[in-house]
Amino acid sequence: MLVVTSDDHLAHHALELDSTNLIPSWETPTRVDSVRRAIESDHRFVDPHRLDESLLRAVHDADYLAFLANVWDRWAAEEAGPAAMGVAWPARRFDQQRRPTALRGLLGYHGFAADCSVVTGTWSAALASAAIAQTAAELVVGGERAAFALCRPPGHHATRDQFGGYCYLNNAAIAAEVLRRSGVERVGVLDIDYHHGNGTQDIFYERDDVFVCSIHADPAFEFPYFSGHAGETGEGAGAGYNRNEPLPAGTELTEWLAAADRCLDALKAAGCGALVVSTGVDTFEADPISRFLLRTDDYPLVGARIAAMGLPTVFVFEGGYAVDELGLNVAGVLNGFEAASR
Amino acid sequence: MLVVTSDDHLAHHALELDSTNLIPSWETPTRVDSVRRAIESDHRFVDPHRLDESLLRAVHDADYLAFLANVWDRWAAEEAGPAAMGVAWPARRFDQQRRPTALRGLLGYHGFAADCSVVTGTWSAALASAAIAQTAAELVVGGERAAFALCRPPGHHATRDQFGGYCYLNNAAIAAEVLRRSGVERVGVLDIDYHHGNGTQDIFYERDDVFVCSIHADPAFEFPYFSGHAGETGEGAGAGYNRNEPLPAGTELTEWLAAADRCLDALKAAGCGALVVSTGVDTFEADPISRFLLRTDDYPLVGARIAAMGLPTVFVFEGGYAVDELGLNVAGVLNGFEAASR
Repeated sequence: MLVVTSDDHLAHHALELDSTNLIPSWETPTRVDSVRRAIESDHRFVDPHRLDESLLRAVHDADYLAFLANVWDRWAAEEAGPAAMGVAWPARRFDQQRRPTALRGLLGYHGFAADCSVVTGTWSAALASAAIAQTAAELVVGGERAAFALCRPPGHHATRDQFGGYCYLNNAAIAAEVLRRSGVERVGVLDIDYHHGNGTQDIFYERDDVFVCSIHADPAFEFPYFSGHAGETGEGAGAGYNRNEPLPAGTELTEWLAAADRCLDALKAAGCGALVVSTGVDTFEADPISRFLLRTDDYPLVGARIAAMGLPTVFVFEGGYAVDELGLNVAGVLNGFEAASR
Repeated sequence: MLVVTSDDHLAHHALELDSTNLIPSWETPTRVDSVRRAIESDHRFVDPHRLDESLLRAVHDADYLAFLANVWDRWAAEEAGPAAMGVAWPARRFDQQRRPTALRGLLGYHGFAADCSVVTGTWSAALASAAIAQTAAELVVGGERAAFALCRPPGHHATRDQFGGYCYLNNAAIAAEVLRRSGVERVGVLDIDYHHGNGTQDIFYERDDVFVCSIHADPAFEFPYFSGHAGETGEGAGAGYNRNEPLPAGTELTEWLAAADRCLDALKAAGCGALVVSTGVDTFEADPISRFLLRTDDYPLVGARIAAMGLPTVFVFEGGYAVDELGLNVAGVLNGFEAASR
């Protein structure tokens, strides 16, 4: 499989608030190294194309993009800390629509989680990550059966106008947009990350041309807590084109695959012509921040299930924090897909 | 003036997130000492009555009270850090109504700011603080022209079901409720703290029996960022019974008093029979986290303006973080009130 990646993410390593500690984010630069090492002998690596910024504007609001582009410079000028973080959020019954002018207010307006901060290298890394996802989709449009965007920071938590969950720009949504522009009438997104892909859901919630399915830990007990319930099925034109499969802590492969099959059946029934897979492997039993129990040997079966759809497929890297096994688990998905595609 | 206070707040000293640093909260136990020393020669101190818990239920939701009562014990059992803090918040377009079961989710559901955490002594201190506000109101009901609740943690940011801004239980709302129960048909709340009293606004937003007026830094540039605009004037039965006076950075006494007069005129025109004053003095020019320019000599004029209403008045302590001058500034308000009342 063609793998798109670059080193432009290296300057992005943020801080996160974790149980009253500010710690280096679990979403580290070494994650890409782990995957690269595990897949470089079996797959061919290519460089990303130049970013088409109209794709960013298609999936994110203009004021959010302007905020992301400027927030670090403003922070460095106005504040002392090493990472830009919000302090207050527009919760229930607050004025959620009016945008503050102050930097700290904007960080709350455009953010939803304290697990995620902006540092000096964030914006350039996020742009590079988006370009990688775009390129993988363009390779598939060009005739590849599948391609893998080995990108970070991840993207599936980034909404139209909010960062959080280690995500700033929604790479999977950008890949879906590339496929749409190529003429695919309906694109399917299958989000297999342990956490609900709330950002991708948000971006396409009122659209019927991108059907988003996510298999994830029930938000009653897991981040992002306020998105990912089974009752969230789309609105307006998008009604019926969003599917969530929240699962309990301790979920093993059998239950996980049953949920995946329900998603794949729905995507097939809706006539999706291409697939974007938000490829998180934090479903792994030894993941340090997750509570599912998939094993390294399970991931080839996941890839095979996806291959059975017979669709052009863009894999976009998302979560997975057990760095030592991360590469093996991602390799399992890709290799299982390829083996089943032959 | 009668002053109600106690030492039950001492075990509450939380942490806050400030510009990528977790620091001891600006809202310190020494704040009460500063005020006590400055007023003890001129005023008489009394102990709080026993808390009437029905008052808590009148201004806060039952599930929020249960959360506050249990959150520290759950945190100590499940997490490692010294202060319970949220990590994700129900922002725009998230499911804001469904309450998560997980502790971290609940901290986001019931909180709106990372300037505020729960520590081992928080709940007992918040209950004691509420009892002090209740008692000051009961003294006024009993015939005192005025009383001062020297309480902490403060309360005016606490909404029906959310903590934030160093506040957990809304002491001013509890005092207003005591006055209402005594037969006062309409109670006025004048919030003179530098920050918008978003919690008090929220609690009474749909009620016409408590008219809430707040003079504060414009939320476009100041915490709480998402509440306190001039257009927020109440809803339903409460329409017309909420008034905000957002003011720019650098506001001095003249402009501040003009806004106060607009509030007092509105409260008078509405026929308020008693007054609760959310008494923050973080409008002070040397306050470390604020941007108004009131001087120590200004505070007696503030007190005199309030006295001119001629109403039974409950002063409830809120913000003010220039600890050295804090006592003098609060004393100025109380002494100015008393001098003008004679």
